[in-house]
Amino acid sequence: MKFIKTPVTGMQDFLPADMTLRRHVLGLIRDTYLSCGFHEIETPVVEHIENLTGKMGGENEKLIFKVLKRGAELERGLKTGELADSGLRYDLTLPLSRYYANNRNDLPSPFKALQIGNVFRADRPQKGRFRQFTQCDIDIIGDESNLAEIELISATTQALVRIFSEAGISGFTVHINDRRILKAMAIAAGFSEEQLPDVYVTLDKLDKIGEDGVKRDLLDQGFDENCAARIMELLAARESAKSVREFIANGLAETIEDGVAENLDHIMETARLLIDPSVNLTFDPTLVRGMGYYTGTIFEISIDRFRSSIAGGGRYDKMIGNFSGQDAPACGFSIGFERIVTILRDSGFMPEEAGEKKAYLVDKKAGDETMRRVLQQAAAERREGGTVAVEVLKKNAKFQVEMLEKNGYTKIQKVYADTVL
Amino acid sequence: MKFIKTPVTGMQDFLPADMTLRRHVLGLIRDTYLSCGFHEIETPVVEHIENLTGKMGGENEKLIFKVLKRGAELERGLKTGELADSGLRYDLTLPLSRYYANNRNDLPSPFKALQIGNVFRADRPQKGRFRQFTQCDIDIIGDESNLAEIELISATTQALVRIFSEAGISGFTVHINDRRILKAMAIAAGFSEEQLPDVYVTLDKLDKIGEDGVKRDLLDQGFDENCAARIMELLAARESAKSVREFIANGLAETIEDGVAENLDHIMETARLLIDPSVNLTFDPTLVRGMGYYTGTIFEISIDRFRSSIAGGGRYDKMIGNFSGQDAPACGFSIGFERIVTILRDSGFMPEEAGEKKAYLVDKKAGDETMRRVLQQAAAERREGGTVAVEVLKKNAKFQVEMLEKNGYTKIQKVYADTVL
Repeated sequence: MKFIKTPVTGMQDFLPADMTLRRHVLGLIRDTYLSCGFHEIETPVVEHIENLTGKMGGENEKLIFKVLKRGAELERGLKTGELADSGLRYDLTLPLSRYYANNRNDLPSPFKALQIGNVFRADRPQKGRFRQFTQCDIDIIGDESNLAEIELISATTQALVRIFSEAGISGFTVHINDRRILKAMAIAAGFSEEQLPDVYVTLDKLDKIGEDGVKRDLLDQGFDENCAARIMELLAARESAKSVREFIANGLAETIEDGVAENLDHIMETARLLIDPSVNLTFDPTLVRGMGYYTGTIFEISIDRFRSSIAGGGRYDKMIGNFSGQDAPACGFSIGFERIVTILRDSGFMPEEAGEKKAYLVDKKAGDETMRRVLQQAAAERREGGTVAVEVLKKNAKFQVEMLEKNGYTKIQKVYADTVL
Repeated sequence: MKFIKTPVTGMQDFLPADMTLRRHVLGLIRDTYLSCGFHEIETPVVEHIENLTGKMGGENEKLIFKVLKRGAELERGLKTGELADSGLRYDLTLPLSRYYANNRNDLPSPFKALQIGNVFRADRPQKGRFRQFTQCDIDIIGDESNLAEIELISATTQALVRIFSEAGISGFTVHINDRRILKAMAIAAGFSEEQLPDVYVTLDKLDKIGEDGVKRDLLDQGFDENCAARIMELLAARESAKSVREFIANGLAETIEDGVAENLDHIMETARLLIDPSVNLTFDPTLVRGMGYYTGTIFEISIDRFRSSIAGGGRYDKMIGNFSGQDAPACGFSIGFERIVTILRDSGFMPEEAGEKKAYLVDKKAGDETMRRVLQQAAAERREGGTVAVEVLKKNAKFQVEMLEKNGYTKIQKVYADTVL
């Protein structure tokens, strides 16, 4: 039998120092969200295959880890699709929708949910992208008003400011848009309904390939030259527009739904009163967000210094209805926990540990009675809240001491038969 | 497309109140173990199929959820066993052994590991037994002395006493044995090496079916009558023996390895000095523990009032060598977290929440300005550490208020246009 000592491809073993950082960041996130009235819940990591492949996950549905049906190996001649009856969740939003449909009678209304958990995607492994990773989501279900958006933006920015301020990192931008504005732009530019998904995907690249790049990309895909020129023109107005209303007034008045601009302006004005002054909040009509289930407002937070998106979300009013037949308005914001931890670690940040860590290294020759004295002393110190390790002094004491120091032990005492504790 | 709103068979959705209890208990466990010098680590929930099916998991290997190899559905004519290249871990000990083999140069020595995580078993679902459940393990790797056993017993009992004392529940018994004593008994009674596993399985039932039951069971399996009688005779001495040495002296002196009895007596004597006086510690030569990988000391903690085992573990000195070719002494103790939570919930225990929880329910007709005032007030109160929810006052205010109260909100204020905050 051959045993394999590395983790499965794309997944991670976390060392003690990694865990100290992860635990610290999760603690800040949880504290902040609980203080804003969110309720923590948990769903299984395994989900029905029918739910995972129900066209709600966009590109992520290609990346599902499927779990073999029990006994399926034994049956011969199973057809494709019959081998797996469940799979590992690719996000926390789909399980939340199922959960809400299943438990709504036992939940507050509106329901403000906090979920912290692992999700799985069989992505091509690369730096900072993993096949098992942690997400931290907050969602508000049952509130059709924009209070949901305001509370989500306010809570998420507060969590991020708390996390990064400790590491001396500041400067975030909240990008905000509405799916209906994207649609109004594309329709006003002359694109057809069927062309919308491809147009969105191209617009989404704007910050990477620039305006010329987007235009060229649209033409390369065979879209009409006039439509391409027109959408770029509409977009150009974003620089000078002082509000979403002003942006809309410039050529979108006929294709936009009533109230969309006013709603977005209201969210932005109110959120600005609540969030940390260091956080920039900006209307960004090029923001797309990948998931197909968004129906209204969408948002993303980037960290200015690293030009890196660290949170994203939006409104998805139609998803829960898929499970219960009964629609419920819903809006969520997800923190990219792994990216945050990577940025903090790369910047050299480590949280300060509370209290002194102490280790007794007991010489073997000191005898049983000495060891007992040390253990009783350690038990008393632990009861008083101290962190105390007791170890047999190793022959290679140097490595033993170094490793303890590396893990935050500042008081290390070698104990011999005649040592006074 | 059909969506399913219940969780996958045997897995659980946790409601906010469940999570409050779970988080509280996990917090006590983590705090206690960290104070005893354990380092928290994490391993992926997905593990190589070669490792999971390597005969280290005993009966659990029959219960593995296998993960379909990416692309395997597309290939036709795959043989049994080629469909899955990974699976969900059935415990935390196997991944820890792989982890240690993979990371030993970056870890303290001895390495005191704490793992809290989900494991998966395709068991027949029944009350209190789930297909995804949380385990809390501590392990000490690299310490061949019985300091490892002493520290594990002392830390685990301390965690349990802390958890249950809050709920007014006390009375635990630590059962302790050594695999080598089991073997010495069976060999002395005349059983052969090959018969040992079946004999162990039968002895393990003693507390359920009694001495007569065990004897009958042995005979039913076709074992020799003299052997059966002799092992029952050897076992009977456990009632009167005042120490493991005394028990061994009564017929096992020739089949036992040197030092086993002294080692166990020493562990018990020292542990008694360290553990809470309410905890009973007893030598139990009928204790077997299911896993095949144990090589020496084994132990289990039961809660007297419920006659229920809530923690178990032992020494497994040969497992890590499977991964690295280099043996490392290892010993671990695992808390049955789900059982603890079930006992606490059934006894009506709920942790007290820190601080007051406050909710503002804002009437829609109160207008945007009122809502902004409330949100700013809430933001200020949250910054000062308060838990504050802001919601739109629903038509069905009664249900809204009831649900908030159920979730610990004690101060609920309805806000209208003229309300003074």
